[in-house]
Amino acid sequence: MANNKVEPRTLPGFMELLPNEQILFNEMKEKIQKSYEKFGFLPLNTPIIEMADVLLAKAGGETEKQIYRFNKGEHDLALRFDLTVPLAKYVAMHYGELSFPFKRYQIGKVYRGERPQKGRFREFYQCDIDIIGDTELNNFYDAEIPNVIYTTFKELGFSDFTIHINNRKILNGLFSSLNLVKESTDIMRIIDKIAKIGEENVIKELTSLNIDSDSISTIMNFIKISGSNDEKLLAIDNLNIKDEFFTTGLTELKEVVNCMRLLGLPEDHFVIDLTIARGLDYYTGTVYETFLNDYPELGSVCSGGRYENLAEYYTNKKLPGVGISIGLTRLFYKLNELHALKVDKKSISDVLVVSASDDLTHCLPVATAFRNANINTELYMENKKIKAKFKYADKLCIPFVAVIGETEIETNTVSLKNMVTGEQVQVNIEEAIKIIKGTV
Amino acid sequence: MANNKVEPRTLPGFMELLPNEQILFNEMKEKIQKSYEKFGFLPLNTPIIEMADVLLAKAGGETEKQIYRFNKGEHDLALRFDLTVPLAKYVAMHYGELSFPFKRYQIGKVYRGERPQKGRFREFYQCDIDIIGDTELNNFYDAEIPNVIYTTFKELGFSDFTIHINNRKILNGLFSSLNLVKESTDIMRIIDKIAKIGEENVIKELTSLNIDSDSISTIMNFIKISGSNDEKLLAIDNLNIKDEFFTTGLTELKEVVNCMRLLGLPEDHFVIDLTIARGLDYYTGTVYETFLNDYPELGSVCSGGRYENLAEYYTNKKLPGVGISIGLTRLFYKLNELHALKVDKKSISDVLVVSASDDLTHCLPVATAFRNANINTELYMENKKIKAKFKYADKLCIPFVAVIGETEIETNTVSLKNMVTGEQVQVNIEEAIKIIKGTV
Repeated sequence: MANNKVEPRTLPGFMELLPNEQILFNEMKEKIQKSYEKFGFLPLNTPIIEMADVLLAKAGGETEKQIYRFNKGEHDLALRFDLTVPLAKYVAMHYGELSFPFKRYQIGKVYRGERPQKGRFREFYQCDIDIIGDTELNNFYDAEIPNVIYTTFKELGFSDFTIHINNRKILNGLFSSLNLVKESTDIMRIIDKIAKIGEENVIKELTSLNIDSDSISTIMNFIKISGSNDEKLLAIDNLNIKDEFFTTGLTELKEVVNCMRLLGLPEDHFVIDLTIARGLDYYTGTVYETFLNDYPELGSVCSGGRYENLAEYYTNKKLPGVGISIGLTRLFYKLNELHALKVDKKSISDVLVVSASDDLTHCLPVATAFRNANINTELYMENKKIKAKFKYADKLCIPFVAVIGETEIETNTVSLKNMVTGEQVQVNIEEAIKIIKGTV
Repeated sequence: MANNKVEPRTLPGFMELLPNEQILFNEMKEKIQKSYEKFGFLPLNTPIIEMADVLLAKAGGETEKQIYRFNKGEHDLALRFDLTVPLAKYVAMHYGELSFPFKRYQIGKVYRGERPQKGRFREFYQCDIDIIGDTELNNFYDAEIPNVIYTTFKELGFSDFTIHINNRKILNGLFSSLNLVKESTDIMRIIDKIAKIGEENVIKELTSLNIDSDSISTIMNFIKISGSNDEKLLAIDNLNIKDEFFTTGLTELKEVVNCMRLLGLPEDHFVIDLTIARGLDYYTGTVYETFLNDYPELGSVCSGGRYENLAEYYTNKKLPGVGISIGLTRLFYKLNELHALKVDKKSISDVLVVSASDDLTHCLPVATAFRNANINTELYMENKKIKAKFKYADKLCIPFVAVIGETEIETNTVSLKNMVTGEQVQVNIEEAIKIIKGTV
């Protein structure tokens, strides 16, 4: 028996953190949550397992291959691979019980059985917000989303990031005016790669679609429009393209930018970027990507956009929406890998209470007094040498150690050591509370 | 296509809440988390999917039947059915990187494919804490656990609950002194049911184990010991049973009760209960159950105890521990069913900003001002009649509506309506912020 052990191991592609890392991860998750709530998004928490036919109503291709699917009893089940499909199911199911516009956030794990690669996860957190309209949804809401992105990344401690914004109708209208509607999805997919593959390769790929060189040069001139946000809007206007989609898209984009400004989004945190199209067919209007300027190698860390219809696979109700998603697991992993996170000084406890005498019981009421003062307090109750107790506090990065020995028992005090400065004072409980609270 | 819809549905046994219920559920979850953190427990978040052989190293019988198990690629996988096995795996894997005693909490979903019954869930939250020692763990820690239970249930808003505490060594020692060691697991399982099946049936079941009536009457006299906690301890002492286990158990129980008191646990919130044994073979010392006295039909809402060895299936290291678990999903469901939760007044937003003019843009800077003052603020941006906007606030239980019409635009004010009292005042933004913050 004794040697008949199972090797304890975690599946590849599944992130399992050490406590100090987990503390920071949770802090980030909580900041995202609080930021979403500041904008009035309501929480949802849908099951991780769904009926396979419900989850796969829309999916196909890659998604279907990656999905975790299995039988239990009579049920054909699958693990959710995103939070959008469960939202669509939820809104279709609970339509009559919800108020529209329905603003919801969901922060939860999703599952994709991808080939595991460094930095690619099979289980990862998505942090989603969506605003769902009943039949229609005012374009104003598209302006609120970048404000949520801005507030959230500020809360997360980033200062230098840029939200890229575009409207797919402008691109679609442009293609329509060039008689390239059929090719538009392909063209947008190619354009979307310009940052990765460069201008020359984009032209090469467009040429291989049998697009004439005049049209290609119009497209390239269009996507190379530069200058300030207002200069870009003016330049697009001056193209004087007569296409209804184009005009609508431009009007929407102008209105969104105007409202973003009225909401106080600083001009240096967003750019109109005519090259982003979000690859997918799903998005039909405003689209967003977000880049951390100190870490361009991460790509977009928060993306999304406007879609025509959330739940067409479940209901005849037309439910347009706009939303974004933060891939928190990947963001955390990448930033940690780049040593951009301060994981090594993270502690849950503000103080460790230890005894310097043989009788440990004197520590107990002290710990309770600290806890009653809302101080996260750990009691060290093993009979070890005082050195071992300090080492424990040090390893856990607990900022204070409160020592209770014979002298402290007699005088009803504690010796409080600041583990960062090394300073130690002998004070009564009330003073100890003030010192701990004053600096944590 | 249009009518080729998939019926949107959620699996039976999977809880999916409406937003107002979810807000309350999240509040409860967060209170439990903050309470665990107040005692210095470190967060863990292990994967939901594990290798089947790792997860089932110890399991058997019922657990194995209930588990969600499936293949993906070359892997035989399973969903975790509790948070203890993943903890054992984690501690065995990361032994060298952890500091002991290792105090961790984990709040997460677990999966059991039970036959669905009302109030029985296949996906449910467990909220666990455990303190794991390296080779040994001081008995003091057993006294800290009831303090965590007390603080947590107080935080959750309960005032009338009782923590039941016992030590299995006392029972085991009693059986040893009666030469009933072999039968002890069976006897404890029977005793454990006394509240459910009554004394007579316990005697009947004990008799059917071929236990002589003298021994049965000793057992019954023992478990019927009554009085205050101190009277019970004295009565147990006075039995004068000469058995090493018995003596150790009694000493431990006395010490735990003494330390619980020193930690400030009120006497009216715990009882020594010689009938609880927690059914399982797993627990070897102190055991706990917790009852909400207003809702006895819920049974124990927080249980656990001391165990000898956490991870014997993975490692030769001896890792004794003590821990408890709250089954939050069931607790929430049952209390909600009993109308014991105030779910109907729950709102994320503190204020809804609406326009009474045709130009909605004037609402935008107001919303940002509220949000910058840390007020959760929702902007209503559909072009509806003012009545519809108030109805929206009402349905979402948002406590304030800030109306901006022509007059307010001219005077740089808002009309702030308290949705509870119906009172409406026209004030500037700073005053509005004070009013909203003062009452939420």
